[in-house]
Amino acid sequence: MQSGKLVIAEGGGPTAVINQSLVGAVLEARRFPQIERIYGARYGVRGIVNEDFVDLSAETRANLEAVAATPSSALGSTRDKPDLAYCRNILATLKSHGVAWFLYIGGNDTAETVRIVSDEAAKAAYDLRCVHVPKTIDNDLMESDHAPGFPSAARFVAQAFMGADLDNRALPGVYVAVVMGRNAGFLTAASSAARMVEGDGPHLIYLPERIFDKNKFLSEIKSVHDRFGRCVIAVSEGVHDARGTPLSVRLPGTVEKDAHGNVQLSGTGALADILGEWIKSELGVNRVRADTFGYLQRSFAGCTSDVDRREAREVGEFAVKQAVWGPRNGSVTIRRLGDYAVDCALVNLDKVAGKTRVMPDAFIAPSGSDVSLSFREYLRALLGSGLPQPARLRGGAIAKVSKG
Amino acid sequence: MQSGKLVIAEGGGPTAVINQSLVGAVLEARRFPQIERIYGARYGVRGIVNEDFVDLSAETRANLEAVAATPSSALGSTRDKPDLAYCRNILATLKSHGVAWFLYIGGNDTAETVRIVSDEAAKAAYDLRCVHVPKTIDNDLMESDHAPGFPSAARFVAQAFMGADLDNRALPGVYVAVVMGRNAGFLTAASSAARMVEGDGPHLIYLPERIFDKNKFLSEIKSVHDRFGRCVIAVSEGVHDARGTPLSVRLPGTVEKDAHGNVQLSGTGALADILGEWIKSELGVNRVRADTFGYLQRSFAGCTSDVDRREAREVGEFAVKQAVWGPRNGSVTIRRLGDYAVDCALVNLDKVAGKTRVMPDAFIAPSGSDVSLSFREYLRALLGSGLPQPARLRGGAIAKVSKG
Repeated sequence: MQSGKLVIAEGGGPTAVINQSLVGAVLEARRFPQIERIYGARYGVRGIVNEDFVDLSAETRANLEAVAATPSSALGSTRDKPDLAYCRNILATLKSHGVAWFLYIGGNDTAETVRIVSDEAAKAAYDLRCVHVPKTIDNDLMESDHAPGFPSAARFVAQAFMGADLDNRALPGVYVAVVMGRNAGFLTAASSAARMVEGDGPHLIYLPERIFDKNKFLSEIKSVHDRFGRCVIAVSEGVHDARGTPLSVRLPGTVEKDAHGNVQLSGTGALADILGEWIKSELGVNRVRADTFGYLQRSFAGCTSDVDRREAREVGEFAVKQAVWGPRNGSVTIRRLGDYAVDCALVNLDKVAGKTRVMPDAFIAPSGSDVSLSFREYLRALLGSGLPQPARLRGGAIAKVSKG
Repeated sequence: MQSGKLVIAEGGGPTAVINQSLVGAVLEARRFPQIERIYGARYGVRGIVNEDFVDLSAETRANLEAVAATPSSALGSTRDKPDLAYCRNILATLKSHGVAWFLYIGGNDTAETVRIVSDEAAKAAYDLRCVHVPKTIDNDLMESDHAPGFPSAARFVAQAFMGADLDNRALPGVYVAVVMGRNAGFLTAASSAARMVEGDGPHLIYLPERIFDKNKFLSEIKSVHDRFGRCVIAVSEGVHDARGTPLSVRLPGTVEKDAHGNVQLSGTGALADILGEWIKSELGVNRVRADTFGYLQRSFAGCTSDVDRREAREVGEFAVKQAVWGPRNGSVTIRRLGDYAVDCALVNLDKVAGKTRVMPDAFIAPSGSDVSLSFREYLRALLGSGLPQPARLRGGAIAKVSKG
């Protein structure tokens, strides 16, 4: 029987439930006597090369449960993309600590790191079991129905648009908000869950799966505004022109890229501001407000989906079982059963690593500026229980008496 | 005994609990037989001059309770500032409908409208009882310990900073977020409630009660960043230079004002973006992220303080009792008793109308870039029960083995 230590790390952007996966894995790993100790690497793989480990075996169960309920990556995260030298460094450190299992929680870039580490370990005949544990608010992982982290971020976006739409009803005008998600429109599309009755916003939803056309954008807003006297719009941060250039890249200012070559899309309000400017100057609408949801949508303390919490916990637990008992390295995926349950499955790392899933055509309305009914069906179960239910006054109008 | 109809309206910016006050007033008003019918004016006083009334007597109690739990102004709101002609129009319409009571829920601009209507009614010997019901996320009403709406917005800001600080711990850098509040710093100061242990952000808080100095701002950030390797900052949208000019007004683009002469500070990300630019270019910090909380902080569906919900309900109920039984027109205020209960009291309209309360010196730290302990004590009870309690891993570091 293999024995040794288990190292777990968190990579990429934090989510509201990533620590559920961490804690699910740690509590499960403690049940196996062959796992001698559980180390947490601080700041992702950077913590491995820096030998910056904390002892997760020493954590009380009470504190682990409190950490599970805390947003953002409790171990710290990284955007580092290991090259071959970095990777050999990782393996050398893991070996020197007698590590037999390596779990890395993150998105498709993180899966790519796990794949390289797994390949290099095999080449070096180092018996290291590597499992990628899924996490991303972008929901852009291949092979999964959805990724842990997305449902809670989707719920935040839905609740934000519920409130923004009610606000816009009270003080009519045009409201546009920019939502995260990079090249995948799922999170922006989640704004559709804010609609309850006819006329509710968001009235228009712009996704990176469709080419962004400024004229179409403005004429669609005009049409909604003419009809309702107001318009609420969700725009993905990743909307781009026909050549694939993100709108945000064409704005003034320097473009910042991370180690994976991803352009920085979040952390500024520039895209929302320019969209607001267009609506104001070219449509002549008086009251235009532009928001960028920014970091709140992935880390806000106190807005999670119970379905997401449960599933994020389970993928962590499942990853440990697969690492200890399963026949091979891989990435944990979530499969949907009926309406609604899930199963976990381990797939080969190269099916997930570095790949991006985008919204299928069936999830997008023919207009290209809305979601389809099947997306709304897809999303419903993920948002969990206790979603706010906005209500409206229903009393009839009073007849006029004093004027003609 | 006076008899007739009661008109109620909602003015100014929506809040998450303004409908609690509306419903508190409607349910109380239904108990008085001399109040023949309850009319809601749509879109504030504009609904009165347009004779745009809905019948609140016809609403079911079940639906009213659902509306009370819904953010934003269910009747619609307005930024209209009535002049004398507008006011006479209001009075003419109210008279023609046989209105004996007028309740208007809103901030200091709304109170000013109530004062003018009250004065003009008296001049015209029209026996109209007028009561201002307080509401504002800015917390800038005179004579009150705090205003309904502020505690829920404060809770949103605290939970947002909790999450943003955890996110910034995971991926260190500088994070700056711009918070609403106009000339009053209370809402920005509420970010301090996100701190639990030493080193938690926000590390710096910039309020409109202190002159904003760019050099001080940058050197304070540098000092925090040198110490912790990261820095989280809360900045009020109303920060201004020594001449009182808001920073946001000096940014490129046109300045928009409402009918009350208030400059539009929200609805763009420009202020946060310029602050982020300064930090990046002048301090040479690599990872800088700038958010603007925007409309989420006043209307997000699903983040309220139970203390705020209860008090907002009570000021509505109290306003009706005062209108029916009390000896005079006025504005409802909230007084704090001990730690912690409240009493309501009616004060003369001119004590509240058009006036702005700002943070007292005792609530601001001597550095000018933080709050004092007494502000934190002041805020604690308002946030209500069930605030998230972020937790951290506590396990010790593992000794290095492979490297020197």
